[in-house]
Amino acid sequence: MDSRTGLPIVGMVGGGQLARMTHQAAIALGQSLRVLAASPDDGAALVVADTVIGDHTDLEALRGFAKGCDVVTFDHEHVPSDHIRTLAAEGVTVRPSADTLQHAHDKRAMRYKLTALGVPVPTWRAVTSQAEVADFASALGGGPIVAKATTGGYDGRGVWILDDPSDVQRLLAEGIELIVEEKVRLRRELAAVVARSPWGQVAAYPVVETVQRDGICIEVLAPAPGLTVDAAVQAQQLAIRIATELEVVGVLAVELFEVDGGGLVVNELAMRPHNSAHWTIEGARTSQFEQHLRAVLDYPLGETSLTAPAVVMANVLGGPSGGMGIDERVHHLFASDPGVRVHLYGKQVRPGRKIGHVTVLGEDMRFLRARAARAARWLREGVGD
Amino acid sequence: MDSRTGLPIVGMVGGGQLARMTHQAAIALGQSLRVLAASPDDGAALVVADTVIGDHTDLEALRGFAKGCDVVTFDHEHVPSDHIRTLAAEGVTVRPSADTLQHAHDKRAMRYKLTALGVPVPTWRAVTSQAEVADFASALGGGPIVAKATTGGYDGRGVWILDDPSDVQRLLAEGIELIVEEKVRLRRELAAVVARSPWGQVAAYPVVETVQRDGICIEVLAPAPGLTVDAAVQAQQLAIRIATELEVVGVLAVELFEVDGGGLVVNELAMRPHNSAHWTIEGARTSQFEQHLRAVLDYPLGETSLTAPAVVMANVLGGPSGGMGIDERVHHLFASDPGVRVHLYGKQVRPGRKIGHVTVLGEDMRFLRARAARAARWLREGVGD
Repeated sequence: MDSRTGLPIVGMVGGGQLARMTHQAAIALGQSLRVLAASPDDGAALVVADTVIGDHTDLEALRGFAKGCDVVTFDHEHVPSDHIRTLAAEGVTVRPSADTLQHAHDKRAMRYKLTALGVPVPTWRAVTSQAEVADFASALGGGPIVAKATTGGYDGRGVWILDDPSDVQRLLAEGIELIVEEKVRLRRELAAVVARSPWGQVAAYPVVETVQRDGICIEVLAPAPGLTVDAAVQAQQLAIRIATELEVVGVLAVELFEVDGGGLVVNELAMRPHNSAHWTIEGARTSQFEQHLRAVLDYPLGETSLTAPAVVMANVLGGPSGGMGIDERVHHLFASDPGVRVHLYGKQVRPGRKIGHVTVLGEDMRFLRARAARAARWLREGVGD
Repeated sequence: MDSRTGLPIVGMVGGGQLARMTHQAAIALGQSLRVLAASPDDGAALVVADTVIGDHTDLEALRGFAKGCDVVTFDHEHVPSDHIRTLAAEGVTVRPSADTLQHAHDKRAMRYKLTALGVPVPTWRAVTSQAEVADFASALGGGPIVAKATTGGYDGRGVWILDDPSDVQRLLAEGIELIVEEKVRLRRELAAVVARSPWGQVAAYPVVETVQRDGICIEVLAPAPGLTVDAAVQAQQLAIRIATELEVVGVLAVELFEVDGGGLVVNELAMRPHNSAHWTIEGARTSQFEQHLRAVLDYPLGETSLTAPAVVMANVLGGPSGGMGIDERVHHLFASDPGVRVHLYGKQVRPGRKIGHVTVLGEDMRFLRARAARAARWLREGVGD
């Protein structure tokens, strides 16, 4: 508890854009987020008063950081589970717990658990040899399969499409722990984002469509266009069930495939604020960042309803260097679209790096998509139409 | 310009809640506000990474603070005009300028200027003797008059109702510089808030009704209920004209009296984000805090339209000490109203002190007023219905 304000201190390990945006939400609640950042140039470190610079893989750094925090939570998945267990054993309130986080950190553990729960997932298998991969592929009846590193993958990294099972040899030779999965024939990707508090309350956001390019999410449409009420309820129920069974505390993003024929299978889980819910800052009554804080503090959760009939978020990737600077690009964008909401993460621009996002709200999803894409292009390339 | 991000550095003198909320807006724009706070316990100092502790009446402190800022602006009216002029003469970009700010700092200068512009104001006079006050009162035909300190008043301080002109003697004896005004017979108070950029763009928010108790604003209704389109346009045009004629840069709040019969007269001016527009954080497409940043940076201004048909903001005042703490009050409020938006300023609770505000959005103004009042009461007193 902060003696100056009578309000709790939430510590977030990791100084990226998720911590940066969580700080905005913390300010409204009368708090100041405490952030453990790897570098003073991290996006959150640039704006958060109570920033500690330290290594999140160093137990001593984590111990020092946690001291005085009412609860410790995470902006990324890179804190060793053993350290999280040690902190908890020493009396630190860590949310979510290491046992829960395992299902976001380790795809094999996640697939085992979801399979045991009867949650629909792609056909999968943990493998350690080329022969096992060949068996798996032949049982599927041929066709490409997907290999995934059990840990460490994100934004398309750690995922490989194998046209031939023997292609796995190179990955196994590198010592990468793998699972293999059927390559799902999908219509599109969806995300069901919920938050759960220790008390057991769960709040579900409207189900969204996520649009990927080169394995990176570039666009989120809220609510998912044309999704039937039955399918939306099914997706939310899946997410609520997973949050409850896994005892998630905080935000849980369930990435889903909508398969040919209309069924849903779970692709990935993330247990922190997630790119698929950045649209909630303006597009939902309570943002996912405030919701995450409320959840880890065991506050009652906030209303999740949409603030407009349709909301589109587009990620802003760093473009080629040279040309006009980011400040000038913001000028031009604001001049041409006074209603677009801009979020920049305080990052150095590098090609392909997520440096921000834009959100537009309105009635007509097709128009909003064009508008969001145009705004993102302005910020990436300094050109518009 | 911040070399780490390629984005500008805005310096705000003053570390109160206006700077605190402006920081939230700066974060979205990829910036980190730089704040000059009087104390490390100031609301903004608790949350802003780039905080400088210093005395805003000390020219050397201001000079050091301004170094490296792209523009310097203000969270309050207490910086001496001479210091602002000196900074500007030394090459610091200060917005608004000292000449402009004079009309917010000095009620006599403001009344002279508005009278010269033909803007409707209460009948008024600058006075230095009891005889002048008696003349003024008798010219009005008797009845109570209002005395105002030319500088330093806020939240009802520096304003006195004189039932008898001779009551002014006590104030003159204290050496207070005064103007006197007719006591306007008013229906209600309104506020017209606009922002203006150096380029000359002006953006106007919907006109609101402000509800005062004991000289302190307790509630803001957006848009002002029952205001005719003609009256709303007249109020916006007045504010746009004042912003333009006075060369305001940043947010300008024009406090208005709606008099019996329906006319409008200008009461006060504020040239910074203002309590009468806190509702814009959720209730308008662009908040007044982002708008102020965009204006002082000469960015194109943002859309000002409402995000819901009706928005009500209620200020949260500190209640009696004892009983449940603020953290527990927030819990109870969130449990009973998951949709209310809470903003706490990081202040120690003292009776009558503004410690935060709440905002509710919806359709029915009467229902929203009851809901906002209930939420503010919960946070003030730890009781609800």
